[in-house]
Amino acid sequence: MSALSPVLDRLDQEFDRSLARLFSLLRLKSISTDPAYAADCRKAAQWLAADLETIGFEASVRDTPGHPMVVAHHDGPAGTPHVLFYGHYDVQPVDPLDLWESDPFDPAVKELEPGRKVITGRGSSDDKGQLMTFVEACRAWKAVHGSLPCTITILFEGEEESGSPSLKPFLEANAGELKADFALVCDTDMWNGATPSICTSLRGLVGEEITVKAADRDLHSGMYGGPAANPIRILARILADLHDENGRVTLPGFYDGVEETPAPVLESWKALGQTAASFLAPIGLSVPAGEKGRSVMEMVWARPTAEFNGISGGYEGKGFKTVIAAEATAKVSFRLVHRQDPEKIRAAFHRFVEERLPADCSVEFHPHGGSPAIRLSYDSPFLADARGALTDEWGTEAVMVGSGGSIPVVGDFQTYLGMESLLVGFALADDRIHSPNEKYDLASFAKGQRSWARILDALTRKG
Amino acid sequence: MSALSPVLDRLDQEFDRSLARLFSLLRLKSISTDPAYAADCRKAAQWLAADLETIGFEASVRDTPGHPMVVAHHDGPAGTPHVLFYGHYDVQPVDPLDLWESDPFDPAVKELEPGRKVITGRGSSDDKGQLMTFVEACRAWKAVHGSLPCTITILFEGEEESGSPSLKPFLEANAGELKADFALVCDTDMWNGATPSICTSLRGLVGEEITVKAADRDLHSGMYGGPAANPIRILARILADLHDENGRVTLPGFYDGVEETPAPVLESWKALGQTAASFLAPIGLSVPAGEKGRSVMEMVWARPTAEFNGISGGYEGKGFKTVIAAEATAKVSFRLVHRQDPEKIRAAFHRFVEERLPADCSVEFHPHGGSPAIRLSYDSPFLADARGALTDEWGTEAVMVGSGGSIPVVGDFQTYLGMESLLVGFALADDRIHSPNEKYDLASFAKGQRSWARILDALTRKG
Repeated sequence: MSALSPVLDRLDQEFDRSLARLFSLLRLKSISTDPAYAADCRKAAQWLAADLETIGFEASVRDTPGHPMVVAHHDGPAGTPHVLFYGHYDVQPVDPLDLWESDPFDPAVKELEPGRKVITGRGSSDDKGQLMTFVEACRAWKAVHGSLPCTITILFEGEEESGSPSLKPFLEANAGELKADFALVCDTDMWNGATPSICTSLRGLVGEEITVKAADRDLHSGMYGGPAANPIRILARILADLHDENGRVTLPGFYDGVEETPAPVLESWKALGQTAASFLAPIGLSVPAGEKGRSVMEMVWARPTAEFNGISGGYEGKGFKTVIAAEATAKVSFRLVHRQDPEKIRAAFHRFVEERLPADCSVEFHPHGGSPAIRLSYDSPFLADARGALTDEWGTEAVMVGSGGSIPVVGDFQTYLGMESLLVGFALADDRIHSPNEKYDLASFAKGQRSWARILDALTRKG
Repeated sequence: MSALSPVLDRLDQEFDRSLARLFSLLRLKSISTDPAYAADCRKAAQWLAADLETIGFEASVRDTPGHPMVVAHHDGPAGTPHVLFYGHYDVQPVDPLDLWESDPFDPAVKELEPGRKVITGRGSSDDKGQLMTFVEACRAWKAVHGSLPCTITILFEGEEESGSPSLKPFLEANAGELKADFALVCDTDMWNGATPSICTSLRGLVGEEITVKAADRDLHSGMYGGPAANPIRILARILADLHDENGRVTLPGFYDGVEETPAPVLESWKALGQTAASFLAPIGLSVPAGEKGRSVMEMVWARPTAEFNGISGGYEGKGFKTVIAAEATAKVSFRLVHRQDPEKIRAAFHRFVEERLPADCSVEFHPHGGSPAIRLSYDSPFLADARGALTDEWGTEAVMVGSGGSIPVVGDFQTYLGMESLLVGFALADDRIHSPNEKYDLASFAKGQRSWARILDALTRKG
């Protein structure tokens, strides 16, 4: 008889009690960005540490300059892998409060549509509901077997929704304690309500602000229009030159390190059924703006971009002012994939701008961060194990997806702890995270617990 | 004994009092483009009407849908001409305020360099200081002779810096009252501090604000970067496309109605000694940005342009935000010469923008005024009289120049009142109009008053 089966049974039997525990956690107003809720954040950390201790973890609340971390350890049998599980107990603010159908901190189970029940409340999906799926899997395993299937360290953060200012220093200071074979991160979506997914790539980012400077003052466009350099015109030319007519970025060397996505992977993405129309319609658009000849999923998950995030210059108020500005500014970012080198791209962009400046103009650069893309090894045995486990639980093959955005903790685990992360989550696109009426499907919470039990089992048998 | 000589003496004696009156007017914050200053605009109009009444004008503040007009009448001896004097009491906004060396609305006299004193403050040159030179000439004439040398109507506008929306309807509705033999307009420069000038051509202007709209909300550039249209990118492309590599405007039909300037006129401009270096060095530039192969004077006085006066979109604050904006806006203007048709060019620009929009994006246009270019008759007797009077006052021959800026009122006087305008002003190129630290030379203010007394005398003797 497998070790897994009784754990799954136990999870089913104990489900109502697991829900009650989640509700207790959801009632704590752990809004990290608002200092008024600092005590509530600490209460959530203390609640989690106490709960993990009931399972047998050695758990502690660890102070930081901001909200505390929760760190917990539990040994596993010799020869099994050591995994670090990451989640965050802090939540987004709840305003505007009047748009909530019920109190965001008084969780409830509601029927969204016939046959579909959801847990409502701030943090139900992001990320308290998600992190408790893992805790409940550990609890059931321990109850059934008196032990855990492998060595597990848990790290719960309290500042994910406010920029994680304490995370890097904490990882650096506690690297020896936190380093594991790999990380499990539960803060992502399923592909849809029936299809589990593992996120295997995250785009990197280079941010740069440029200010083009021309005359030493603002000029009257009648008196000087013609002879005087106009920084908005120069900036517009620079930005326009960054894409060719096929939507490719023209920066020399930009595509160095970018690989073509293997045909089978592209096929699997195509099979997901997302089209340009279905992707763009919800935001009021219909024409893909990226590189010609590539699907929208490839554009977001596997292709780099140049984006203009802000622009300003001259007179921006009401009415009109016939001015030629002294300077104009743009915030530009590049999303990176594969092995693109952030600092090489930043340097190429500087040259690109400087080459387009008239001899009497100048430019100031302000860097705004840079991080490479993340891609998990497709041949990782852990990845194969997790896919199999998820497929078994959901009855639908787990898909490997990408994320167009970055999840900083994944890069930080790579940088400070030298380990890869497996991104598995059970949230859905309609969970309204960060918005009023956040919810988490009851099925996500129930089958999420079972999924982790299966993943731990698979990893352990393999390990 | 001439009628003129005691008037000039009186102006010299009363100069300090004339300065105090100008300071009172400069303290009024009559920024017309910002609705917050509407009451200040009205105060300036009331101040002027009251001051003109002290001279004996029949003066009134006349409501418009925007800021009020000031209209004043004073009869002259039979057989003398009837002149309409025009100026504007509104001023440009003062931002960025931190670049001003002193409060823009607390005027002062400062010594710019040994022997050169200037009046500082917003409007000191454009146009309060200039219009008061004429008022002071009238005051002195009336004080000395108990009458004015000719019939004078004065029109002061309060919306010149915000597109003059009420001017045309006001001229049309009051044409019978305002029609004179010709207009005197004081809103232009001298050639240099020693050389008076009369402006015989003015560029026209078409102003247009465009807002490019893409997605129906701001987007996360990680989640949507690639597939989603970026309005800043679209706008940059539109603006960049408006000039070719030789600095010519690429708008179809843009150069219709533009004439080549006759060689003798170009020669006379060359004789003024202005070079690209001498024109651009004072503003910190050195490379002419206009059409290749033309002198800077020709660029400003006889060639049309496309200028970008403001641009905004996305995140413009400190730091960085990985956003794809829902919209981006630019304020664009075209300076016109000769017989270019403003509305034809506006329509061509609309088509130009629309042709460059992706099918799922839209654009909103906001027109900001349009006026054709003006060229005066070189054989007008009034022109000859004014040149003689200016040459007498300054001891240097008055030159006929062009102006790169538009003064829409001159076209409107032509259209609605059927009269030409004589453009005489005493501003200098370094007056920083529309910029921080605007100033007006004390010599401009003093000799400007004397110049108008001489011009009125010359016109009257001729009349």
